[in-house]
Amino acid sequence: MYKVNIGKKILSANDEYALKNSQFLSGQKKLCLNIISSPGSGKTTILVRTIKELRNKIKIGVIEGDIQTELDAERIRATGAPAIQINTNGSCHLSAAQVSSALDKLPTRDLELIFIENVGNLVCPSAFELGENAKIVVLSVAEGDDKPVKYPAIFARSKVLLINKIDMLATTSQVDFDIERVKIDARKLNKNIEIFPISARTGEGMTIWYDWLKRQLNNLG
Amino acid sequence: MYKVNIGKKILSANDEYALKNSQFLSGQKKLCLNIISSPGSGKTTILVRTIKELRNKIKIGVIEGDIQTELDAERIRATGAPAIQINTNGSCHLSAAQVSSALDKLPTRDLELIFIENVGNLVCPSAFELGENAKIVVLSVAEGDDKPVKYPAIFARSKVLLINKIDMLATTSQVDFDIERVKIDARKLNKNIEIFPISARTGEGMTIWYDWLKRQLNNLG
Repeated sequence: MYKVNIGKKILSANDEYALKNSQFLSGQKKLCLNIISSPGSGKTTILVRTIKELRNKIKIGVIEGDIQTELDAERIRATGAPAIQINTNGSCHLSAAQVSSALDKLPTRDLELIFIENVGNLVCPSAFELGENAKIVVLSVAEGDDKPVKYPAIFARSKVLLINKIDMLATTSQVDFDIERVKIDARKLNKNIEIFPISARTGEGMTIWYDWLKRQLNNLG
Repeated sequence: MYKVNIGKKILSANDEYALKNSQFLSGQKKLCLNIISSPGSGKTTILVRTIKELRNKIKIGVIEGDIQTELDAERIRATGAPAIQINTNGSCHLSAAQVSSALDKLPTRDLELIFIENVGNLVCPSAFELGENAKIVVLSVAEGDDKPVKYPAIFARSKVLLINKIDMLATTSQVDFDIERVKIDARKLNKNIEIFPISARTGEGMTIWYDWLKRQLNNLG
């Protein structure tokens, strides 16, 4: 049998759209970050605070993924930033085609940074590229420190881990969460992952996250 | 064209296994409950406390679903109850075939109640029947009170909603969670859903959950 090398990787339909999104974004020199976590880890709260505190420094837009409702896009729009809501109607992750359509609607020319807030799900979104520059995984301390070993894929594939709701550690005895255990387990999966403990509620730790964002934008050139 | 009614519903491969599991369980008069929530809502902690406090009243076994690790099965086994761990290796939900295989390994003859702890995911597990008598959805107050409207399917399909970690409401100002809002939104999706606010950590509210379990066992006859 002959083996013919056609010199090109066969892409899935999703990966084709992801490549198209990535080419569009890099052509325009936009930074695009795909935020992934369980429901209720604080993704929208992190974005709202980030947008407000960087208002005069970085022009930010958001693509919101949810199964139902416009609630999250409304929270983003209340800050003054543009937000496009995608409702997946039952699907457990955003697809690159949905993001492509949302990018058409966002005023991307006026933006420097586009956040994609994925559907709340620590599993499925990790398997679907959207054309982003990087994935950011959020884990709140209320969820427990065993999550990197139990849900390894997203920790292996993310550039940053935001450990959110650290204000709960200081004031309640109800939360058992060993930040060092999480750091060790996440770095076993991904030795270069950046880990920033934050509280989007109180603002603690957010400056190192903002500095990281600014460095990524500078690196785009 | 003729339309031939073959008088039987074509079942998916998963539904065929679910039917087989259901027939096996009802033949043996076992109660089987499928516990579904986001990662970190406290499913395992609820099961551990339930098993310990009902130790002399109900014989309980557990099927544990996780993407990776035996951690949850080990926590259950530490109570003395039998537990079979299923690792889905990346899949975001348990399948009825996996549960069928775990039921073969559990000492079901010696049990009255079998809990299936699904993979931590508020989306995908709601779409896969496992042969259970009922689904139980767990929502912790740390996740926020907007979850029924944002993730409606599982709230529409569950017989009971356990609102967990209510001890956090009493002592921290970090958690904004309106139990009445959740009750109203969940009942719009599912007018008969039973809603029990609990703390698996402190034990608050657990008695009404135990009473519900006992009623279901009595109803099996």
